[in-house]
Amino acid sequence: MAGGSTQPGRGVLEKALDLLNAFEGARDGLALTELSRRSGLPLTTTRRLATELVAQDVLERLPDRRYAVGRRLWQLGLLARVQGDLRDVALPFLQDMYEATRENVHLAVRDGHSALYVERLHGRASVPLVSRAGGRLPLHATGVGKVLLAHAPPDVVAEVVAHATKATPYTITEPGRLLRELAEVRRRGYARTVQEMTLGTCSVAVPVFGAEGAVVASIGVVVATTREPIRHLAPLRVAAGGISRALR
Amino acid sequence: MAGGSTQPGRGVLEKALDLLNAFEGARDGLALTELSRRSGLPLTTTRRLATELVAQDVLERLPDRRYAVGRRLWQLGLLARVQGDLRDVALPFLQDMYEATRENVHLAVRDGHSALYVERLHGRASVPLVSRAGGRLPLHATGVGKVLLAHAPPDVVAEVVAHATKATPYTITEPGRLLRELAEVRRRGYARTVQEMTLGTCSVAVPVFGAEGAVVASIGVVVATTREPIRHLAPLRVAAGGISRALR
Repeated sequence: MAGGSTQPGRGVLEKALDLLNAFEGARDGLALTELSRRSGLPLTTTRRLATELVAQDVLERLPDRRYAVGRRLWQLGLLARVQGDLRDVALPFLQDMYEATRENVHLAVRDGHSALYVERLHGRASVPLVSRAGGRLPLHATGVGKVLLAHAPPDVVAEVVAHATKATPYTITEPGRLLRELAEVRRRGYARTVQEMTLGTCSVAVPVFGAEGAVVASIGVVVATTREPIRHLAPLRVAAGGISRALR
Repeated sequence: MAGGSTQPGRGVLEKALDLLNAFEGARDGLALTELSRRSGLPLTTTRRLATELVAQDVLERLPDRRYAVGRRLWQLGLLARVQGDLRDVALPFLQDMYEATRENVHLAVRDGHSALYVERLHGRASVPLVSRAGGRLPLHATGVGKVLLAHAPPDVVAEVVAHATKATPYTITEPGRLLRELAEVRRRGYARTVQEMTLGTCSVAVPVFGAEGAVVASIGVVVATTREPIRHLAPLRVAAGGISRALR
């Protein structure tokens, strides 16, 4: 499908993407040497490609001469359908949820073996979290992740359960216990976590169904452990129902 | 800076970006022929590049064989600093504004001769608008745009005023009147529009100041003309003050 490696330019696009991927977790910018090391590209190739990407506004050069991802890539990324469809349909419902709770409200989809956070709404009163829009977190350790995992194909479940690691001392990783919990998530229609991803926080999450009735996303609320997330279950279900209907 | 055109691969990156830019306003996907026409690239080049970009998850192939911008580009775009810095700092304040108003809340920056919408919060009760995150609107016809234009360099102001076109019959385009209005925006510290971009809506917007005291962004609220936007001015100023302090 991708054509042979003899096609002109094939390597350039791949290398450019390697370069851009190097900025994951480095939004404050990267020096040329860091960029070369992270991308695995030689220094001369890195310099040439970075210079070209700066000329195209895909990267920008900061005053301290470090490189950062530029505005043009952000604009192009907003043309993606993950943003365009699901996010646009869900956002008003997520806003309602935020307004009702003032807590962290998440919309996530499963992407391979991780939960991809499509949107995170939060205010100044919300508990601080590691999640961010566009970021990934383990499927087995978060509320939305557990919902997505509970409805994932058996091979994905087997793989994730076999390699589940502890994010905190409370993360459930024992295969038998984790599988029983996933069955419970399917049965009762929601997931609940207590300090499994971030100490001091707990969460509740429910599934969002697509046009064919399959689980296509999950929405959840994360609160401080001093609060009770389960009281947010009813409004979450209303919001998930609204999004599911709108997706049909 | 960009190096000579003899550099290997230079053309490929440019062409790939031309291809991606073709998806502006076409988030539901493009057939190969449309993609070729919009990007200005020959059909064979378009097919080869599109196939390669699909293999890299930058584009995706829809069930109806059309092409669309894929998830990977969205994730890469979220690494951009426009999103990373300003949006992250501003979002809690924008949420507060949304919660207080349930209306459309905008965060925009000036990018050349247009207003680039960094974020738009809205709920089901908000009046429908043409704005979207990552989209552009004219500087002279929107509330946030007028604030940004009022603080733009003289050459930008001259250019925008000279080429201002009517989005509605109410858009102020007469150079003398527009320039007087911009002076008024600077003097009183906010912009106000009535049906200048979208019939049936009006807006109020205020500036956000960066570390050096320059106007770096604008936030605004858009409501139906049956409501009064000026009552949102006080909370907008509080929010803009909060964002400005946080940016320092």
